Amino acid sequence: MAADRDQVLETIQSYVDLVGKGTADDILALYAEGATVEDPVGTEVRTTRESIREFYAAIEPLEQESRLVSARVAGNEAAFQFELITRVGEQTYTLAPIDVMTFDDAAKITTMRAFWSNADMDISG
Amino acid sequence: MAADRDQVLETIQSYVDLVGKGTADDILALYAEGATVEDPVGTEVRTTRESIREFYAAIEPLEQESRLVSARVAGNEAAFQFELITRVGEQTYTLAPIDVMTFDDAAKITTMRAFWSNADMDISG
Repeated sequence: MAADRDQVLETIQSYVDLVGKGTADDILALYAEGATVEDPVGTEVRTTRESIREFYAAIEPLEQESRLVSARVAGNEAAFQFELITRVGEQTYTLAPIDVMTFDDAAKITTMRAFWSNADMDISG
Repeated sequence: MAADRDQVLETIQSYVDLVGKGTADDILALYAEGATVEDPVGTEVRTTRESIREFYAAIEPLEQESRLVSARVAGNEAAFQFELITRVGEQTYTLAPIDVMTFDDAAKITTMRAFWSNADMDISG
């Protein structure tokens, strides 16, 4: 059994939309029980629901826009690039990470790993 | 110890260039001993030098162009998207996979996993 490709693409699109405009709980609803988050890759892996919630709660109040750039699905795994624009006062922070996710058969996220570093952050304003 | 970010980016650029225009042996030289290749993700992992060589030898005679679209490095790991254009007679096949690689401290590739599926192949001509 594999997750349906269209369902996986739908989860990815929802994830990108919600990182921009959703609540931490909205995002958490896309994750399967027992899911893990490593963002950015190389930092400690979040393995509990609370620690994942905390991660997204930190960006929830920010003024952000997001858009999916490109997604590639291979069975129950996918990689995609998205752009996240954050406005803080006069400053605009633009980051376009490449995320790698695995999914369960219902296309819920089981693992998320985000590839980016500070060198990829554009600051203007 | 971690691989140097610039060296990792250089390996990625060389990889993309050589997939387009290099020989199987040129590409193999970017891989560390004991490296593994899974292309596309979900297919059997190639674990021997010969099986990796065979993989790249199959595309060596093709008329191809390649370019790096975007790369994100996080420590000894990276994800990047590249475009590969293959011309066979009148037909043009365009594929833009997202590859995920890990590197040793000399920025040689230790694992490669390529995210794409047939649905991502554009055929024209």
